[in-house]
Parts: sequence; C-alpha cells; structure tokens
Amino acid sequence: MTRSLGFLMVGVLVLAAGAAGAYDGMVEKKTFAMPSYTTVNGQTIKNVKVGYETYGTLNAAKDNVIVICHFYSGNSHAAGKYAAADAAPGYWDTIVGAGKPIDTDKFFVISSDTLVNLNTKDPRTITTGPASINPDTGKPYGMTFPIVTMRDFVNVQKALVDSLGITKLHAVMGASMGALQTWEWAAAYPDMVPRIVPVIGTAEIGPYAIEWLNIWGAPILMDPKWNQGDYYGKDEPTEGLALALRMVTIHARHYGWANTTFGRRWAAADRDPGKSWDNKYAVEDAIDKAAAGRARSADANSFLYLAKANQLFVVGHKGTLEEGLKGVRAKALVIPATSDLLLFPEYSRQAVELLKNDGKSVEYVEIPGDGGHLDGVLAVGKQGEAIRKFLSQ
Amino acid sequence: MTRSLGFLMVGVLVLAAGAAGAYDGMVEKKTFAMPSYTTVNGQTIKNVKVGYETYGTLNAAKDNVIVICHFYSGNSHAAGKYAAADAAPGYWDTIVGAGKPIDTDKFFVISSDTLVNLNTKDPRTITTGPASINPDTGKPYGMTFPIVTMRDFVNVQKALVDSLGITKLHAVMGASMGALQTWEWAAAYPDMVPRIVPVIGTAEIGPYAIEWLNIWGAPILMDPKWNQGDYYGKDEPTEGLALALRMVTIHARHYGWANTTFGRRWAAADRDPGKSWDNKYAVEDAIDKAAAGRARSADANSFLYLAKANQLFVVGHKGTLEEGLKGVRAKALVIPATSDLLLFPEYSRQAVELLKNDGKSVEYVEIPGDGGHLDGVLAVGKQGEAIRKFLSQ
Repeated sequence: MTRSLGFLMVGVLVLAAGAAGAYDGMVEKKTFAMPSYTTVNGQTIKNVKVGYETYGTLNAAKDNVIVICHFYSGNSHAAGKYAAADAAPGYWDTIVGAGKPIDTDKFFVISSDTLVNLNTKDPRTITTGPASINPDTGKPYGMTFPIVTMRDFVNVQKALVDSLGITKLHAVMGASMGALQTWEWAAAYPDMVPRIVPVIGTAEIGPYAIEWLNIWGAPILMDPKWNQGDYYGKDEPTEGLALALRMVTIHARHYGWANTTFGRRWAAADRDPGKSWDNKYAVEDAIDKAAAGRARSADANSFLYLAKANQLFVVGHKGTLEEGLKGVRAKALVIPATSDLLLFPEYSRQAVELLKNDGKSVEYVEIPGDGGHLDGVLAVGKQGEAIRKFLSQ
Repeated sequence: MTRSLGFLMVGVLVLAAGAAGAYDGMVEKKTFAMPSYTTVNGQTIKNVKVGYETYGTLNAAKDNVIVICHFYSGNSHAAGKYAAADAAPGYWDTIVGAGKPIDTDKFFVISSDTLVNLNTKDPRTITTGPASINPDTGKPYGMTFPIVTMRDFVNVQKALVDSLGITKLHAVMGASMGALQTWEWAAAYPDMVPRIVPVIGTAEIGPYAIEWLNIWGAPILMDPKWNQGDYYGKDEPTEGLALALRMVTIHARHYGWANTTFGRRWAAADRDPGKSWDNKYAVEDAIDKAAAGRARSADANSFLYLAKANQLFVVGHKGTLEEGLKGVRAKALVIPATSDLLLFPEYSRQAVELLKNDGKSVEYVEIPGDGGHLDGVLAVGKQGEAIRKFLSQ
C-alpha cells in the first residue's frame, strides 16, 4: 500500500492525518467469496473473490453501516494501518476513524475491492478479473473475462453486505469511480440506501470522458507485449501500462498544483532540457517515476476493464441520466473538487440540478483548492464537517 | 488542406465563413529561403526554407504589415483559397479579408509556415525540419535536426519580413502556438512590434502543459516503427502518431462540445459498446478516424520537435515569465477562449496581470462558448470587432 499511496502523493502533500491521527484499530484485509456471480450482461463468473476491510463495530440492529467504494487506481484500504510501522494509513483516513466525520465510534464501515481491480500484484488487493485463473481452463482469463459494469461492482458489494446479515445501510459514499458506484448503489437498491455522498464523481460518463478513457487504454493496446491480453507468465506490457498511468496521474491534478510543486524546474540542475532530448523537466521525471512504480503492482488488462466499466456508466444502467436519477431516492450530499480537471464540478452540478428539479433532497459543497481531482482523496477533510453533519441527519 | 481542415472540424461546425465570405483574392503559397540559419542554441541549419502566404497589398511606406503565426498542427494557410473549388478557406478566414476585422483593404498580412512544421506530407506546407534532407549527408535529419524554440520560429519569420524590406510591423497575432510566437515576437523585437494579439495562448508553458506535451509525444517513442527517428523511406510510426493526434484533438475540445456533438451515441446503432471490445462510442470512432486521417499528412519526428519547442517556451527565452514580459513594449489584446481546457484562460490572465502591474497597455476579452481551445480558431469571429478596434488604435 505504501507504493500505492506513493503514487497518489507523487512529490506532493503528506496526508493531513499522520501516524498519530490515523484510524486507531489495526486493519485486517478479509476475503468475500461467491461460488458464482452472473453479470448484468448475463455471463457467469465462478469463484468470485474480493477483498474488504471494516472499521468500527456493527451494532446489534445492524443499522449503523456505511459502505465506501474505491477509486479507479485504488483498493479497499480506505483507513487505518495493517501494522503500526506502515508508512501511511488508508486513503481517506482523514475522515474515517474514532471521532472523525465518518465516526467509527458510531458507524461500521465496509470498504471492498472491486471486480477487475487494477492492483493485482499488490498482496493486499484481492479481486477477480482478467488476471484471475479461469476455473474452466486453469489459465488466466485475459480478455475472455466478461465485460463488467459499475452495477456489477455494486452487486458484488451487495452480496457481501447481504452475507453479513445487513439489510439496510446508513449511507454509501466514495471518491471518483467510488462516486460512480455510490450513485449506482442508490439507483440499484433505493430501499437499502437512504444517504449517498458521491465525491469528485459524476452520475454519467459523457463523451469527453469516454474518449479520454479510450486514450488512456490505447498505449496498452499499442504495446506489442500486450499480445491481445495474453501476457501472463511472459514479459508484460509495462511500457504501455506506465504511459496509461502517466495520463491518469496528470489528469488527476491541476496546473496550480503543478506550478507549486514543480514550476519549470529541470530534473537535474546541470541538464538543460533545451540542450538534449534526454534532459527532462522535474515534472516529467517525477510523473515518469511515479507511473513506472505504480505499473509494477498493476495489471494492464485490468486497466482496460476498468476503463470500459467507466465508459459504460450511466446511473441506473438502463437509460438516460435523467431516467437513472429518477430511481434515486437517497438524500445526497454531492462534493466535487473545485479544481477538478477530470470529472469537472459541472458534472456534479448537473446531477444536483436534475435531482432538485425532481423535488429530491440534495446538498452540494465543493472541496476548494488547486490540487485537481485528487483533492477528493487528499483534501476531502476540508468538507469533513459537512460530511459529519450530513451523516447525522 | 482539405484534409487538414477536416481534422479541425471533426464532426463539428462548418466555418462561419462559407465560400461566399472567404478572403476573395486567390492565395498563392510562396517560399522563403535562407542559405543558413543559426539557432539560439548555436547550431547552424543550411538551406532553410519555409512557406508563406500574403493577403492584401503592401503599401508604399511598408507600414501596414500584420504577421500571423500558426498553431501546432496548422500551417500558413490562414485565409482565402488556392482555387475556387477548395472545400474550405484558411483557418482564420472569418477575420481576415476585405472589410473583415483584419482588413486586407488596409493591411498586408504575412503568414508563414514554422520550422519543423508538422504537415510535411501536405504539398501546401513548406518547412525545414527532421524530415528535410541534411545537405551534409544527403539523408533526412531525423532526430539529428537541432532542437529549436519559439524564438527560432520567430527569427526565421523576422528574416522573411526583412527580406521584404519591412522594418516595422503594424501587429503580430496568432492562435495557440501562434500566440506563443506572438509573445516572443514582442519580446525579441520590441522596436518592430507595437501591437500583439495572442489568442488562446500563454506567455509561458508551465509544468502541467509540459507534462501533457511529454505524454502527447510518448506514443511515438513507444511505436517500434519510430526507430529512434530513423524511419524515412520505411514503414512509419503511424500508430503512435495517430494516438498523439487523438490526444491533441480531444484536448483542443471541451465536454460541452462533446456532449452536443456526440452524447453517448454508439458508433453503430446495432453495436453496443457494453457487449464487445470492438464496439465503440461515436466520439471514439470520430476521433480515431480524424486522427488517423491527420496522421497521413504529418511527420512523427516533427511532432516531437514541436512538443519540445512548446515545452521550452517562456516569453523572452532567457529567464522567468516576469522577466520576459518586462521586455514586451507592445500594446496587447489578449484573447483566451472561456472553455479552453488546454491553454486555460487563467494563463492569459496571469500575463495580463503582470503587464498591468508593470504599467503596460493591455486589453483582455474572452471568446465565449463551449468549443474548447479550438474556439480560438473556429469561433475567433466572436471577438472580431474587438480585434478590428484594437488594430485601428
């Protein structure tokens, strides 16, 4: 997880919550298993496993449950540490813990890995996807794994929640792709979901984002080592995957952050980028290294499956944005980041307007700053009190 | 040139100026040649040639000259047609012509191809760059061509202007990379340049743009056919170049434009993108095709040289943005596009603030709309009257 967070924090901020303030229970990664799961497209996947973590205590009534869904390049490690010596806690530790806005003295928080999670080589990520062994062949699925959607991600989480005997949630929340799942939870299971907090998300992936997701995956397809997805046990398409992750990394940021963090500094003071093709700016060097590091724990095919799942997303998954939002009955607290250049605040405002026009209860606040999309992870604490208040209503 | 404009207008607008309103003189591409040119880095290039076009008539005093600099993927065809049957006129034809804001009844307009122009396979582009023959070897330069800068682009234009006996300009202007050259003209030759109109530009490429330029070029470096730039006369790195151009194309746009133009439509009504990896959304299909078409007239190495020249840009080319702007004495009319997601309006506002704080004469207007960066080309007419007024002052 250190490597994973290192990627998020490339040359940047230290999380506001240091070791002292982290969720204070030690966290354990657990496994949820299903003998089979049938996708919304009608394809059956056997032996589905996903990892999950919980923070806090499930009460006797089983009515104090908050589900947190993770972002594209993340996993279920939302809070706390596995061991005291861990370099950093989970990604939302600033707002999850005893006395924090998502107060683990009150709430039982469940955070699970998605299907087709990116980080297949991280021992603390447990997922089922193209890098998994197909029980019917004894070989990795590769690109024969079924195409899955946000609804499938949510349905597996629903099965996990069911398995714990929980019939109603207090809230669902998440950042970025976690916000997409949050909207989908509300549309898919309106009776179970009274509150949602979609952070730096959107209720629909529009064509601008569809094309960027297409471009993000394109270097993988270009890499000869990708080999139509059949690379397991061979030399992997690391170069294509690293370029994909360079795009993700810079897209998740903002020019204000880049100006402050790097300016026009050179990667090496004696190597002028104007004098040689080998000489780089500091920003190029830092993002190259961060992405290369991140690629080591990630799987190229899983990247493509995630991109597809995001492209396919319209809340409710059976019509337009407007139709999908009609199925949402949860109260919503919608939180974009002001400087987001990936899932623009306008996307959140559009959903808010549609819900308001439909007479729904919806609140809207922004995370201020110039950190870009990633402010929804690194600076979410700026709206911690809004989240605390919303969850208490 | 039709193909080139087709790229710009992918699935979009028809230029507001149709055939009837185009600059009405027929345009001729001319060649400006220099026996040698020495770059600011101190490297000498022999037999430099660039193409140029002129619109209007040079007056006896030779004091009615406006220089227009072109954008990254463009060339010198700013206005008019080569033949009546041309599908479309030059890219800024809405504002260049008899009675138009850049009034060719008054002004003599010079527009030249830059060094390392992208469109080496377009017979109407004349440039010197990595695809040119090195007279010393009889072979194409490839990546042995010197690294060049905006100052070098401007210096070659200056030599062209000198060759016509012109000692002072009325104004310099341009869109995007053309705006970078415009700033540079003002900093490099302050006695020659009393007025500048940088459109959708910036006076400095900051680290966020530096990294995106790096990523734009990365698929070319990844393409095995690139072969360290040694591909002339062989199979070319078309796949890498096309992916680079896909990024340029979508970066030059805005989600509002994408929503209106494509929505979530499928490329084919019977091919659900949720059902197969081969099935695409309309936006993916359109931009794939536009970029592939564009790649046919472009040169991969030239793309890399352009990216480098842009990364290296700080106005004045010898210090900080602040220092560079101190050298600008021209009156400025600075025109970003409100919805620009590539060279954000904030970049223009920063330059304007610095000039104002320095007591300089500067005006600022935005091109409204949701077309993105490309509004500085396709919708520049929205600020045509501001340009007309500024040029008359």
